[in-house]
Amino acid sequence: MNTVPKLNLFIRPATRDDVPEIVRLLADDPLGSQREKYQNSLPRPYYDVFLEIDRDLHNELVVAEAKGEVVGTLQLTFIPYLTYLGSKRAQIEAVRVDQNYRSHGVGGKLFEWAILRAREEDCHLVQLTTNKARSDAHRFYERLGFVASHSGMKLDLNRRA
Amino acid sequence: MNTVPKLNLFIRPATRDDVPEIVRLLADDPLGSQREKYQNSLPRPYYDVFLEIDRDLHNELVVAEAKGEVVGTLQLTFIPYLTYLGSKRAQIEAVRVDQNYRSHGVGGKLFEWAILRAREEDCHLVQLTTNKARSDAHRFYERLGFVASHSGMKLDLNRRA
Repeated sequence: MNTVPKLNLFIRPATRDDVPEIVRLLADDPLGSQREKYQNSLPRPYYDVFLEIDRDLHNELVVAEAKGEVVGTLQLTFIPYLTYLGSKRAQIEAVRVDQNYRSHGVGGKLFEWAILRAREEDCHLVQLTTNKARSDAHRFYERLGFVASHSGMKLDLNRRA
Repeated sequence: MNTVPKLNLFIRPATRDDVPEIVRLLADDPLGSQREKYQNSLPRPYYDVFLEIDRDLHNELVVAEAKGEVVGTLQLTFIPYLTYLGSKRAQIEAVRVDQNYRSHGVGGKLFEWAILRAREEDCHLVQLTTNKARSDAHRFYERLGFVASHSGMKLDLNRRA
């Protein structure tokens, strides 16, 4: 039998002190390693953007903690739209789980929190985009009930500058 | 030769008085007609959400105007993320062009505005999701340089409630 040890996990708002650990998670990934800089002294914009997220009522950045360590992260954004009779959506982005804590329910716990928050805020929809290269993530989201009805398109402004 | 009459188009922030015309555009569409209510007295949430968008510095709702009429609309949202070294993205949603003004450059003008605003706000990326059923829109975005690198997934909270 495949028994997975139960982790004592909890989700809490990220603080400024968590920024290095969050960046470590963002960088520890085949796609993230190409674009993040996890080093002893983190580039300043990471902290500037953290402050901006922290101050904004429409954005919530959280970490999953286990045994005093940051083992996962996720950002939730609430966006009001006139569509669907005037409504609000919750958008999930920047989801990462520590490689050493995969298959321990960290992702599930993060999403449980995000969906609960979306309901509390009276959102009618939770949405996310996932890079087509992340096939495992895709299956995980489908198990949660997400439907891949849309195409997620990106325009890189730096490349065109 | 296929000459398209030049429209004198301009993009401006939407006002509360534009709400019925924006809802008309949102509803006048095979997908939108299933979910919007364009009627003489609009459901109140449309106005409530308009106020919320209007007050929020991270959201900009605009209309394209031609000959004193609203012929297009688009909403832009700026979202700060720790990813990409701490950065900001611009997200485009709720794009519609009046059926009678298709192929007059309305969509192009709306996107020109959105990309310019994204650069002004120092965004590194512009992103959107488009329903896979909208194949014309998909081609339009690709011509603008958007790459369909992601899958856009939605979880309908009402259906699961």
